[in-house]
Amino acid sequence: MNENRYCVIMAGGSANHFWPISRKSRPKQFLDADGSGKSFIRKTYERFAGIIPAENILVVTLSRFAGLVKEQIPEIDDCNILMEPYGRNTAPCILFSTCEVLRRNPDAVIVTTPADHAINDEDAFRNDMLSIMEHAENNQVLMTLGILPTAPETNYGYIQVTGGRGSVEEKRPVKVKTFVEKPDSNLAEVFCKSGEFLWNSGIYAWKASLIKEELEKYTPEVISMFKGIEDALGTAYEQAFLERAYSDCPKISIDYGVMENTDRAWLYPGSFGWQDADTWESIMRNMDDKDPAGNVFHAAHTLKAEDSGTLLMTDGSHGKKLYAIKGLKDYIVIDTDDALLICPRDDKQYKDLLSGLGMPEYEDFR
Amino acid sequence: MNENRYCVIMAGGSANHFWPISRKSRPKQFLDADGSGKSFIRKTYERFAGIIPAENILVVTLSRFAGLVKEQIPEIDDCNILMEPYGRNTAPCILFSTCEVLRRNPDAVIVTTPADHAINDEDAFRNDMLSIMEHAENNQVLMTLGILPTAPETNYGYIQVTGGRGSVEEKRPVKVKTFVEKPDSNLAEVFCKSGEFLWNSGIYAWKASLIKEELEKYTPEVISMFKGIEDALGTAYEQAFLERAYSDCPKISIDYGVMENTDRAWLYPGSFGWQDADTWESIMRNMDDKDPAGNVFHAAHTLKAEDSGTLLMTDGSHGKKLYAIKGLKDYIVIDTDDALLICPRDDKQYKDLLSGLGMPEYEDFR
Repeated sequence: MNENRYCVIMAGGSANHFWPISRKSRPKQFLDADGSGKSFIRKTYERFAGIIPAENILVVTLSRFAGLVKEQIPEIDDCNILMEPYGRNTAPCILFSTCEVLRRNPDAVIVTTPADHAINDEDAFRNDMLSIMEHAENNQVLMTLGILPTAPETNYGYIQVTGGRGSVEEKRPVKVKTFVEKPDSNLAEVFCKSGEFLWNSGIYAWKASLIKEELEKYTPEVISMFKGIEDALGTAYEQAFLERAYSDCPKISIDYGVMENTDRAWLYPGSFGWQDADTWESIMRNMDDKDPAGNVFHAAHTLKAEDSGTLLMTDGSHGKKLYAIKGLKDYIVIDTDDALLICPRDDKQYKDLLSGLGMPEYEDFR
Repeated sequence: MNENRYCVIMAGGSANHFWPISRKSRPKQFLDADGSGKSFIRKTYERFAGIIPAENILVVTLSRFAGLVKEQIPEIDDCNILMEPYGRNTAPCILFSTCEVLRRNPDAVIVTTPADHAINDEDAFRNDMLSIMEHAENNQVLMTLGILPTAPETNYGYIQVTGGRGSVEEKRPVKVKTFVEKPDSNLAEVFCKSGEFLWNSGIYAWKASLIKEELEKYTPEVISMFKGIEDALGTAYEQAFLERAYSDCPKISIDYGVMENTDRAWLYPGSFGWQDADTWESIMRNMDDKDPAGNVFHAAHTLKAEDSGTLLMTDGSHGKKLYAIKGLKDYIVIDTDDALLICPRDDKQYKDLLSGLGMPEYEDFR
């Protein structure tokens, strides 16, 4: 494997969209949402371990999640877990990890990826990864991976490419025209029909030196906070430096800070079955093991009667528990060691139940 | 306390009407249904311990429940746990326990009581017990305790007294006219309005020698099975004797076998708040801690939203669990260590769910 190739897994998010299975103390990336026995971050790690040298795979996470990273990826070297003291969105995260990679290898090419996405076709994914890394190695471009839309999703951002539908269908790198935030459903329909808008996967490939230059050019408010980081990394002062830098740093995403401004943004159209499901409703929609009445019961022992459209999930602590459930229509039932949620499947009702009733005090309930 | 007074607690039932809290392996009498920390049998024992010498309180149960009796009543002497090899209803149970009591004390007067009833006013209950024991001591009668009906219940048997409404209102012993099985709702209305029908509590008081005589007179099919029991009790052959006797004995209740036939049946009208709730629906109806929407959530930590008429019960193994439940109307949610039941509160739907789906295999599910 090419020793200049690096992977940075961004695993600092603390979304608990899947309470009570996800918590502030164990957010989505550390969960086994599909009962496969492997968490999102574990799967992400294994996905890249086949194409990038293990010692070149780094995880950036919040300090308080370092233990969870080690739990899920026991084989990772401690020095490959980069700890952010606070979450400041992706631009500071990418700057920090890029500086650390550059310290190790000035010729590095980095794939940066979220830790909590689901991929259906792993082989197709790896082929697309190799393509974008190769293109990033051979050109002064910031590669992003676009996903061919399968439905007019309103929960994803979109990227419009130059060259229209044809360039996408040819499955070759194409220059980006514009980045678009999550659209409403009408706009999403238009995007999908046009054939020149793709889902924004949040997966990038670039030379470390190039993204560093672009960050310096387009995000001076971040750069100024991290001035002197090269001298601090790998020293006894690193932690104190990061504490100060992150403390005052604004929250800026790499798309907003760099990708929307640079003229070096290129896209490669990926097609490997991709989801960034972040609600029970979307998890349910993407599941393909529904019974004829549209239920998914993820438990070893169940008695169903007259249920429909209902999702039962457990956190795996109840392997021998029997779930006898009757007459629920479009409900979610989530049973964990210390919380039971029974709620209509509708996202709004779920959010209302949690937020309307003083949820924060229960987030890490135990 | 009068040393001739005995209490026999009948605790051999194996009803699991309250699955998943009750099981074949831990039926209702061994449950703490109201979260008080004490099981029905424990409360029954303590109720009588105040008025009957502790060494005169016996429990009759199935052999397989002997451990549960000892768990709930650690202070009971092993020789006061009488073990039936099989359940054969109350007549054989009363014959067996009566013979054992007679062996210890030919002058005994026995109160016989189920182990799984709920009593509201313990002081009133004890006063009524003392009254029926006294009446049984001074007369050649089989006393039964009737309960003044508070509603036209169709889940209880009724007893009609001679002397009409007046004798009941005077709260004095009165001769029984007839025993009636559980009526339909129209008949129950008529019974309640008449004022001369009382609920059959299944609590009796009689001289041991008298009930023995009456059993000999009216239940020869039981008596013939137990011929020679006096010689077997307290010997190494007792267990083998009981195994044979119970094995072939028909199932006969004391009401059907004796009380409906004898002319010695008398009733004392009790009034101490009594329930023999045996369905979730009736448990729910008798609960007085409902919220304004008619819910009862028996758990330490709950989030309710738009629920109504819903019962949440746990088996006490989840003291720290949070129950977040939205939009359930007239449901029961029962959460135990190894089973979760979610079902419309309606008795029929509950029974359908369990029986219609091969419940027996799940009764002792673990």
